[in-house]
Order: sequence, then structure tokens, then C-alpha cells
Amino acid sequence: MNRDRFSINQMTVKQLPLPKLVEECVRLGVPGIGLWRDPVKEYGIEATARLVRDAGLAVTTLCRGGFFTTDGWEADNRAAIDEAAALGTDTLVLVSGGLPAGSRDLPGARARIADAVGALAPYAGERGVRLAIEPLHPMYASDRCAISTLDQALDIAERFPAEQVGVTVDTYHLWWDENAPAAVERAAAGGRIHSFQLADWTTPLPEGVLDGRGQLGTGAIDLTWWAELLERVGHTGPVEVELFNDALWARDGVEVLEETLAAFLKV
Amino acid sequence: MNRDRFSINQMTVKQLPLPKLVEECVRLGVPGIGLWRDPVKEYGIEATARLVRDAGLAVTTLCRGGFFTTDGWEADNRAAIDEAAALGTDTLVLVSGGLPAGSRDLPGARARIADAVGALAPYAGERGVRLAIEPLHPMYASDRCAISTLDQALDIAERFPAEQVGVTVDTYHLWWDENAPAAVERAAAGGRIHSFQLADWTTPLPEGVLDGRGQLGTGAIDLTWWAELLERVGHTGPVEVELFNDALWARDGVEVLEETLAAFLKV
Repeated sequence: MNRDRFSINQMTVKQLPLPKLVEECVRLGVPGIGLWRDPVKEYGIEATARLVRDAGLAVTTLCRGGFFTTDGWEADNRAAIDEAAALGTDTLVLVSGGLPAGSRDLPGARARIADAVGALAPYAGERGVRLAIEPLHPMYASDRCAISTLDQALDIAERFPAEQVGVTVDTYHLWWDENAPAAVERAAAGGRIHSFQLADWTTPLPEGVLDGRGQLGTGAIDLTWWAELLERVGHTGPVEVELFNDALWARDGVEVLEETLAAFLKV
Repeated sequence: MNRDRFSINQMTVKQLPLPKLVEECVRLGVPGIGLWRDPVKEYGIEATARLVRDAGLAVTTLCRGGFFTTDGWEADNRAAIDEAAALGTDTLVLVSGGLPAGSRDLPGARARIADAVGALAPYAGERGVRLAIEPLHPMYASDRCAISTLDQALDIAERFPAEQVGVTVDTYHLWWDENAPAAVERAAAGGRIHSFQLADWTTPLPEGVLDGRGQLGTGAIDLTWWAELLERVGHTGPVEVELFNDALWARDGVEVLEETLAAFLKV
């Protein structure tokens, strides 16, 4: 893929302070960046917005809103929408949350998530922010995200205008699903692919299964096939690389950024 | 559920030597047992068959055949079918295997699995052994089983007579899938539920995600809902409890067996 479509998700190189990350993006000709709320708040929202704007970087997404099955979700998500608008990104990624504490009612959790998205959609739309529901791998269904497939995400998103609610397509979460390619076409036909993220699948999975997303090209996913699929359905926007990986985090951040860009160019 | 439907999968209490396990099953009125090939071979196939027969235990399954994407699968699976017949069980559970070494072709792996099942089905049928394709949770798609949903398992099984090929329904692998309940009905309508297994979903998942299957009632799955679903579709056969769990394996096996039976009766 071409460099002009590359966006580095901040989490991939979280060891880099924001100004250093921005500086290195400029040096390497990286045009986009996906930001996370916590480090952005630490640096300051206005300061971050200025920093990336002055550097000419596009903020491709803000990660993340969601966790709709825990108390306080509404105020927190309205704040996230405001932050996205302030940062100049049009996309807020949603990780929807798992089962409420003590519950075993998965359909109930999914209904609650749909209701929450409905409560937020107009507010997001007014601020020019699109909500991008991210289906997470089914191994997160109980504790992080009850939305496990792209079709489930679309079943919710399609209740609302596409400029308010769409989906995040992340290869790490969807690669195993034989129905995902058709769902990608469905999403594209509705103009709902608001974010496309790449990560590779490597095993063995680490304890807790959070921080084992593989560098592009090191795992089981045919990423070129996925990139071609997204291109075929007309997705020409930025492509974020979002890796959670203890081994990468332990290394020099600039080196990891360079390596990630090189791996992206090879897809 | 009633005791007369309970079957203890040998792996749940693998710390118990086979004669001790059989003795405790008799003492507790446990009517069925699911066996694993390796410990059975260690004890001797004929000796095992005699031991369980003399104790009046039903062998509900033999685990496992499969791994069709690695070399040598055919001879190994024919041997597994022979062993199942010798042990007097009518069901061989199949864990189909993941991607071949170095491959990223998931549809190709699935096609290979379907071909392998087709090559084995008549041989199994002649020996009175039903193959039970087990969809494994998508987190195993790359390294253990490319068949990730019950519908995928049925898409293969339905090419062959039900007395040759069916499926294993295991709550641990299917609980997250909103399409699984309809697939259970589909499987039942075709007479293809050859094994029903229970395990609960607990987090955090351990490294490698193999040995973290929760004791019944300790996790996220509404097991009663699943038991009722299976009853509703007419499955009245044995129900195996198969837990892979380091914490349970570290404890006294008899205590774990008693606890597992008690948990089963509460479902």
C-alpha cells in the first residue's frame, strides 16, 4: 500500500511521547495518525490539536468511545465526541463493552449497546463526528465487546444515517470470519467503512489476549487479500496500523515506527 | 440436568489414573465417560475397553481425531476410528486443524478439511463410528481448528450421511455466536448432534488460551439456556463436561469430579 494512505495508530508506538511521534511522522512522510484519549488528555486536547495541525497530520480516528454496558457511559461518550471534534477528526472508534457485571445475558448486552449508539448518534452528527462501531474478536465478547462480527456492527449502524454511525474494519478481529468479506461489501455499499485498521494474528496468544497483535506480515492473516478487498469495494481512505504488542512496546519507538511503515508498504 | 445424562470427559480430571476415574464414576453413579486417545493408549485400548465395560460405563466419545492440515492425518484418523470402535463408542470428536505451516489460506484449509472428512466418512460408517466435527472458538482458527462456527461444521457434515458425520456442540466454543442457536436447530433437524459438551467461559484467558475453560457456573455463559435449547430441539443424549483448566488439574481429582458433577446437576 502507498505511504499516502498510512496512518499510525498512537497505541502502536505508545512509548513515544506525542511531540516525538508527530516529529517522526513528519520526517518519514507519514500523513495520518490515530489518537487515543488518555495520552491526548495528558498532553492537552487543544495542545494536541495544535501540534498535529501545525505538522500537517490528519487525525484519522480518535480511540475510543464505547463501554456502553458500564455505568457512566453516556457522559463519557459525549465527552469523547467533543474531544474528537476538538482534535479535528471525523471518526470516533467505539469498543462497545462486554457483559454487565454479573450478567450472562449476551443478547441483552447487545440490545443495550444498540440503544446507547442511538442515544449518541444525533449528538455525534451535530458535531461532525462519525461513530465507528468496531466488532472485536469473539474472544473479547464477555469482557470488552459483545459485538463480535461485522454483520452485528452493521445491524446496529444501519439503523442510523451513515454520516452518524458506521463501522471499523480491523483485520485482527475479522480475519477468521467467512461472512466478513460479504459484510465488508455491505458496509461499503452503505458508505459505512469509517475506519480500516490492520494488525496481524500471531500465536501463542498472551495471557489476557490483549497485547499480542502481530506486526504486519508476521502472522496468519493474508493482509494483501484484505487490502485488495477494501480497495475493490471502493475504500480509498487512510489505513491505520494499530498494534498492541508487549514486544514492540519494549523496543525503541522510532525503530518500531519505521518498521511498521516498511511492513505497511509491503502489503 | 439429571445425573443419568452426565458424562465426565477424561481431560477434566486428567490427574486421575483411568482405573481410579472409573471407580469413582461407579461410586458417584456417573453413567458416562469421554475418553482421550493418549491416556487410553497408555493404559491399553483393550484393557480400557474391558475396564469401562465391566464397570457398566458408556463411552460417550473418543477425543480426538482431526488435524487434517498436517501430514499423516489419514493413517492417524483411520487408527482413531478403529480405536473408537474398539472402545465401544459410536462417536469420534474431530478437531480439524488450523492453517498448514506457512500458509495464510484459510478458505483453502477449510476445503482441505472437508476433503479429509469425505475421505474418512465411509470408513467410519463401516465401523459404526460417527465423526463429530467440532467447531472451535475463532481464537483457535490459525493453529488448532479452521472450523470456527457450527454452521461451517454443518456445511461440511451435511455432505455426508448423518450416521457417518455430524457435529459436536460445545458451549465454550459457540456461546458468543448469535447464529449458533439456529445452527443447533439445523443440526438437530438433521440428526447431527453427535456430542454435546459443556464448559464455561472465564476471563482473563491464560497464555496460549488452551487451559482456561471454566467450571460450570463460574463464567459468562448462560449454560441453563443452552441446556434448554438442546432439550427443546430433542437432544436427550449424554452431556459431557470437558474442562481444560490448570487450576482444576492442580487439585485433587476426586474432589474436582465431585464438584463437576454437583455443578452439572445445578445447570
